[in-house]
Amino acid sequence: MTEKLPFEALSVETLAARLGGNEALCAKIGKDTGAWKVREVGDGNLNLVFIVEGASGAAVVKQALPYVRLVGDSWPLPLKRSFFEYHALTRQEARAPGSVPAIHYFDEGQALIIMEYLAPPHIILRRALIDGRQLPNIARDIGLFMARTLFRGSDLHMAAKDRKADLALFADNVELCDITESLVFSDPYFDAKMNRHTSPQLDGLVADLRADRDLKVEAQRLKHIFAANAETLLHGDLHSGSIMVTDSETRMIDPEFAFYGPMAFDVGMLLANFWMSFFSQRGHEEEGKRDAMRAYMLGVTVETWSVFRAEFSHLWRTERSGMLYQKSLFEDQGDKLGAEQALDHVLHQMWTDLLGFAGIEVHRRILGLAHNADFETIADEDLRASCEAKALKFGRHLAVNRRQIHSIDEVNQLAALIEQESSI
Amino acid sequence: MTEKLPFEALSVETLAARLGGNEALCAKIGKDTGAWKVREVGDGNLNLVFIVEGASGAAVVKQALPYVRLVGDSWPLPLKRSFFEYHALTRQEARAPGSVPAIHYFDEGQALIIMEYLAPPHIILRRALIDGRQLPNIARDIGLFMARTLFRGSDLHMAAKDRKADLALFADNVELCDITESLVFSDPYFDAKMNRHTSPQLDGLVADLRADRDLKVEAQRLKHIFAANAETLLHGDLHSGSIMVTDSETRMIDPEFAFYGPMAFDVGMLLANFWMSFFSQRGHEEEGKRDAMRAYMLGVTVETWSVFRAEFSHLWRTERSGMLYQKSLFEDQGDKLGAEQALDHVLHQMWTDLLGFAGIEVHRRILGLAHNADFETIADEDLRASCEAKALKFGRHLAVNRRQIHSIDEVNQLAALIEQESSI
Repeated sequence: MTEKLPFEALSVETLAARLGGNEALCAKIGKDTGAWKVREVGDGNLNLVFIVEGASGAAVVKQALPYVRLVGDSWPLPLKRSFFEYHALTRQEARAPGSVPAIHYFDEGQALIIMEYLAPPHIILRRALIDGRQLPNIARDIGLFMARTLFRGSDLHMAAKDRKADLALFADNVELCDITESLVFSDPYFDAKMNRHTSPQLDGLVADLRADRDLKVEAQRLKHIFAANAETLLHGDLHSGSIMVTDSETRMIDPEFAFYGPMAFDVGMLLANFWMSFFSQRGHEEEGKRDAMRAYMLGVTVETWSVFRAEFSHLWRTERSGMLYQKSLFEDQGDKLGAEQALDHVLHQMWTDLLGFAGIEVHRRILGLAHNADFETIADEDLRASCEAKALKFGRHLAVNRRQIHSIDEVNQLAALIEQESSI
Repeated sequence: MTEKLPFEALSVETLAARLGGNEALCAKIGKDTGAWKVREVGDGNLNLVFIVEGASGAAVVKQALPYVRLVGDSWPLPLKRSFFEYHALTRQEARAPGSVPAIHYFDEGQALIIMEYLAPPHIILRRALIDGRQLPNIARDIGLFMARTLFRGSDLHMAAKDRKADLALFADNVELCDITESLVFSDPYFDAKMNRHTSPQLDGLVADLRADRDLKVEAQRLKHIFAANAETLLHGDLHSGSIMVTDSETRMIDPEFAFYGPMAFDVGMLLANFWMSFFSQRGHEEEGKRDAMRAYMLGVTVETWSVFRAEFSHLWRTERSGMLYQKSLFEDQGDKLGAEQALDHVLHQMWTDLLGFAGIEVHRRILGLAHNADFETIADEDLRASCEAKALKFGRHLAVNRRQIHSIDEVNQLAALIEQESSI
């Protein structure tokens, strides 16, 4: 019935009354609404997130709001992002089973998804990394998730007709794409209204970056690729704040930015957030040195890319059933090496682009609207600015020199060099 | 009313009765259907095309058939291609006024477009080139058409929301895209069922090309770009058979393959057809030498690309109102040269890709299903095969070496070299 009512935001007070009759939710947590405990825990930038605990279990109720929560109702944002999140979650679950929360219920009209509650010890990955925790499985789990969703959502695997249908479906996610297009690729590079940065410490560097022609041209080339290269269904916002972890488990959440874009975008954004964690560790050293944590973070980038490459290559060899690089041209003609050559070309292009996306992602998290807790939680502004400055220089190097960098070891040596030398 | 009737193919006999009540047609050619003269002139691969002449004028009635005309009803093809042709024509007219036939009427249910009749001396460009005619305006007119439609249909010019809506609309043109994806990019490179080539003369070369790993990998890279890089609304089939000319006028027709793809595709296909005309001239020399015609064809490629670049650059500087390479990052910061740098990057990428698309287009016209009259009308099979072999080698060189070729003069020197040396 709720589908037919006009949209109304839930609240802690109204949730039990509004959803008490929801069979999926009652089946999960118990139908005695008097026993329900409701908390609002949304700490993201966009939505309401409730945890509802009942007699027999708990669930998450996530509801979109018709505006950007971080900014307020001066920035309207359509409810349909919930529709895209729902459809992205179902596809991710099909392509990388077990990697996203289970969905119990979706109500398009109320922009509401009821899904699995990832209870403690689940924690947002970003929070864990700020705390200096070394999670043993994240590189493997996220590497596999990316390889499987990116490969299986593309013309490498899908029927062309199905990919084009999904391309069209997600092309309507205009407003969320616009956020990325503006906030990630453009705003950081000029004096856009909603920008902020640690000031005055970074003022000089920010001015330098905004006058940096090569950087700006690259950022716009990358925006062009982001907007035009509809290669696969992206998560679209795959940073360490969109990942829930325990020591043994990893789940990707919040794919409302999903749309058809370049594979390199998800991978680049994810790695950028690992590198930002690396550069932010200096700001969290009060309770002990973070040398091991820094080494861990660089190791995570190496392993993530390695797992990604290995799984992507495995899928290339075993599930390349789409119209691209057809086996009829290679394996079926006894030319296995031709297929390997094509794989190298695809991975090389992806590598080159992901370095660019990574560099840009670092910049927007320090210069744009949506900052990272990794840096934001460093109370000492001089210390924070010092960490941020290193990350900014690192990002600039990646974006501008992405065609000349050959390996993730090179990138990590660069990161270590910048981290160690204050005068670089 | 006709919209509500089930689809029924028109015929010369039924057209007047079926369309006698059509106001748009009657307004154009006169309502006395007794005076109508109807001819079917479709010589394309897909559709019915009628010329209807009445007391006060003439018009073209183009109707899609539910199958591929070239092959027959064993190859079904949806009627909705007429819908895409109609929408492509309206957008092309808006973006490059005067470059396409005027539309009088569209009936989606009957897959029928009534449009301007381009009367003699209008002739299909391919036919004119086979006849050895030098058209003075084609390079300018087609160069302008491509620059205007490709630029203005992209995120360089359109609002992102509008481009995404059109991207989604044309993404449904699945079956026509599939024809290109299969027939252009894949079938020529293996023993696909519908392939044919001049045999046995070309058998050895064809076997070489199908065993050519670098070529096949490039062809598939280009297919990947074609399928994924949804940069702008393409004509999608812009060869010399899709262009009507007089000495003073040039019109682009038949855009039913329209969809969002890479700018380089239209330009590459067009230039490929000019180069094929160049290589085919030797086969049409009975009535006199074609040296001047060969020089003309190479000149046309130079001028087309030059006009395209100039107009695209002009639009870049004056109409760059979309979200890509925003002026707020360049001109508005006093950095005009930054915008020029970005333009060079965009044109460089386009150049590199168009050479690849051109090479592939040459191959598919000689090895695939849909051949060109340029070669097909050469009755002497040895002579035809000799022309085709040169074109095949030329196409291979372009596709594989596209990143190392810097100018159209280089390409034309290569073409001249291959044309002159029988043993290359």
